[in-house]
Amino acid sequence: MSTSANVASWLDEVPWDKDGLVPAIAQDAASGKVLMMAWMNREALEKTAQSGEAVYWSRTRSKLWHKGEESGHTQKVRELRLDCDADTILLLVEQAGGIACHTGRERCFFRKLENGRWVETDPVLKDPAAIYGKK
Amino acid sequence: MSTSANVASWLDEVPWDKDGLVPAIAQDAASGKVLMMAWMNREALEKTAQSGEAVYWSRTRSKLWHKGEESGHTQKVRELRLDCDADTILLLVEQAGGIACHTGRERCFFRKLENGRWVETDPVLKDPAAIYGKK
Repeated sequence: MSTSANVASWLDEVPWDKDGLVPAIAQDAASGKVLMMAWMNREALEKTAQSGEAVYWSRTRSKLWHKGEESGHTQKVRELRLDCDADTILLLVEQAGGIACHTGRERCFFRKLENGRWVETDPVLKDPAAIYGKK
Repeated sequence: MSTSANVASWLDEVPWDKDGLVPAIAQDAASGKVLMMAWMNREALEKTAQSGEAVYWSRTRSKLWHKGEESGHTQKVRELRLDCDADTILLLVEQAGGIACHTGRERCFFRKLENGRWVETDPVLKDPAAIYGKK
């Protein structure tokens, strides 16, 4: 079996939704914290596996998004996992800079439900203006 | 402010998609393992918060799904978290029976990409026939 046939095979096991996407969850391989949830299309998943860095599909920008391409907060992929229905991806990653969220926080899940309110529990580690400012 | 107003408020912060759903990730509060990803509608999220046990929306059955209602593998919710875009929920749970997956495994993410193949890495802890058999 050729390499390209292998590539097709494992990618074909994913039942891409009508938009050609599946949810992808990134978890910090060291701390175990769930960092973010984004979306992947077939090309994003293939590029992630090939490059060893997380590549998502940006639904707002309608293009491939190499995570960290602007911020420098790339994600080195340690494991790629698939769930029982094959329609969700789990990535175990090393998070560059210790910041996954565009708000400058470690993770996107920085709000917790407490007494009927979403309360911010995690500090901003770096000002987004500094992350996305002049380079 | 009345309790009902509060309930409306925190639920209204979620931008439910065109099907009225958002992804919900369940993570084991003790081991840190990501157990599964399912979907919630507004009622599911409200019932989850009210009851303290995970309630999802089953897209295949088009009805509310109190996780564990058949298997007994309920999820006691320790934390409910919301991401930066407010469109993904993270649940920190105590998993009854130590089994989240309908295949009888601890987690749904039991396959890992290795050399171009999805390889099963996690054992079946309980035969699904025994889980969903006669009661």
